[in-house]
Order: sequence, then structure tokens, then C-alpha cells
Amino acid sequence: MKGSAQPKTTREAILDATDRLLSRYGYKKMTIDDLAREVGIGKGSVYLHFTSKEEIALSHIDGIIERLKKKLFAIAESKASCETRLRKMLIERVVFRFDSVQHYTQSLNELLAHLRSRLLDRRKRYFEEEAQLFAKVLADGKRQGIFSLKDPLETARILLDATNSLLPYSLSAYELGDRKEIEKKSQRIADLILNGLLKH
Amino acid sequence: MKGSAQPKTTREAILDATDRLLSRYGYKKMTIDDLAREVGIGKGSVYLHFTSKEEIALSHIDGIIERLKKKLFAIAESKASCETRLRKMLIERVVFRFDSVQHYTQSLNELLAHLRSRLLDRRKRYFEEEAQLFAKVLADGKRQGIFSLKDPLETARILLDATNSLLPYSLSAYELGDRKEIEKKSQRIADLILNGLLKH
Repeated sequence: MKGSAQPKTTREAILDATDRLLSRYGYKKMTIDDLAREVGIGKGSVYLHFTSKEEIALSHIDGIIERLKKKLFAIAESKASCETRLRKMLIERVVFRFDSVQHYTQSLNELLAHLRSRLLDRRKRYFEEEAQLFAKVLADGKRQGIFSLKDPLETARILLDATNSLLPYSLSAYELGDRKEIEKKSQRIADLILNGLLKH
Repeated sequence: MKGSAQPKTTREAILDATDRLLSRYGYKKMTIDDLAREVGIGKGSVYLHFTSKEEIALSHIDGIIERLKKKLFAIAESKASCETRLRKMLIERVVFRFDSVQHYTQSLNELLAHLRSRLLDRRKRYFEEEAQLFAKVLADGKRQGIFSLKDPLETARILLDATNSLLPYSLSAYELGDRKEIEKKSQRIADLILNGLLKH
């Protein structure tokens, strides 16, 4: 786990190395041999934890989403008002993903093209888990009489749809180039959405 | 031009044939020979109008956007209220694109992967032209005191961002499968956006 003081497991070390090698070589050129060398273990040890390069890349993406969910959960549980929490979460889901892949945007299309079909099912699960976190804050706001909405989970899914076009999966490396631009766009969508939800 | 009583030009006939062959063969397998045969002209005649298969495919996509812009313009100019026009336009931009490619969704990823880099610049232009049409209705609503917004064009761009995740370019063929689902999603985003824009 990044930023943690705990010693890394071999599995974590392999996933950290994956992140560096995706940036250095890209997905296609990266080999299991490269990964083993980067971690300082034998190739066989890599295969003790993962069955294939594809599985490693998918686990790497799983890791990004796990860290994002922790961030979103922390915001959802924080003491700020419902509006502030919701706004922060909408922006975080865009900006966190941007920051997680921005050092290898050039090879991102290649990675996504390779994993596309297997990523699809995962993305459904990612979005559903994210929606649960958003639904919590929406339900809070509904209870407090701040938000005007019927079904919190249903509304959460709409909020994800309305910001999904800003995620790396939809954007090209070229469009992903400008962090400030993406951040500003996410803020503006968040503000418009918030205005639509608030009781007037 | 589809649905028109005027005789088709050769250029139009080639683009209509492209639409049919994309559905029958997909982009990769479709050849200039196939196209010439489908139209009933010689291969050389195709090259009088287009320099390459890539250019034909791009012109085919241009044609979809031209027809969409006409539809959006007609809605923007109609007699309905600003809210109704805006809502219709937001849904139309999603559903029209869906309907234009739904007969070849299976080969859509292949087509987009091939054209991706050249499509990028075009997409910027498409979105900018769409934004102009949306800005007109937003400006109407602002003038009438119905919408609360600062800059119509800036707001139009946010509305496009908020519905862009539902366009075929972002979705896979698999996700594109369900027209009703996509339509419902676009309606819900449109309603939330409208609520955010209306003066309360």
C-alpha cells in the first residue's frame, strides 16, 4: 500500500513495479522478466502470485480503484456538509483517476485496448461500488431535507454517468494531457449537478 | 441525403454504401472494390471522390454529425419552451448517434480504433459546433429569465461533457446494446441538468 509504513508484500511490490514499468515501457513491451528483475525476485515467484501479465495489469487497475474508494469513503464519512462532501467526491473520482495514470498516458490506449473486454465487467463492478458510496451522502442529504431526490442509489448512478466522460477510459492520452482543464470541467459539472439536487 | 427525393450524387451513393458495408463486413474487411461493386461504379470512380478508405469512413462519420446538427437546429428553432427544447436536444444528441451506428456496433470498436487519432480533431470540431446550437437555446432561456447561467457557450460545453459518456465513442459495442437503457440515462441526466439551470 502506497504511503503506508508497513513492509510491502511481494504481491504489492509486483504491482508497484507494474506501475513504474507501464510508465517506462508501456504495456506491450513490459515482460514478466522485466517485472521480476524490477522487484528483485525470480520469474517463478511472480507466477506464484499472478497467472499472466494481463492479470497483473487488471490487478494494478483494481488497486487504483481500491485506493479511490478509500478516498471517497473518507470524504463521505467526513464532517463537512452534504453539499461539500458530494462536490468533493464528484471531483475526486475524476482527478484521482487522472493522477493515477498520468505518468503513462502515452501507453494508456494500448493498455485499455488490450484489456478492454475483461475491463468491461470490472468497470460495472467499480461503478456499482462507487455508486454505493455516493448514495450514502445523497441519502444523508435527503434525510436532512437538503437534497430533493427519490432514490439515492439511482441518483448516484446518474451522477456517475454525468462525470464518466472525464475518466481516462473515455479520454485519449491526448485529451488527458491537461489536468487543470479536466479538473475545471469536473468542478463545473459538479456545481451544475449540485444545483439540480438542492432544494430551492 | 437519406429520406430526400432528390437523386443521389455519386459521393452520396458511396457514403450510403459505406453504411451498409460497415454493417455487413466491418471496417477492416471492407474494400474499395466492395464499395465500387455495391454502388455499381468502377473502382477508379470511387477514387475520384475519396483518396482512401480512411477518408471515406471519416466522411461517413461527418455525414452522421451533419444530419444530427440539422435535427438539433430544428429543435432549437422550434416553438417549444426553452426547457423543452434543451431537454429534447440533450436526449437527441445521444439517441441519434446510437441509432446511426446501432446496425454495426459489433465492428464499431474496430472502426474507432483505426480512426482514433484522426477522429480526435474532428470530435473537437463536432462538439464545438454542437455547443453553438445549445448555446442559442441557453441564451434564449437566459434572456427570458428562465435559466440561471452566466455564459451560454461555456454552459453548453458543460452540458455536452455531462452527456458525452453516453456517446458511442465512449461506450463499447456491448454497452451500446440496450437503446432503452441509454435513452433513459440521457433523460435522467437531462432532467438533473435542467433542474440545475432553472431559476427557482
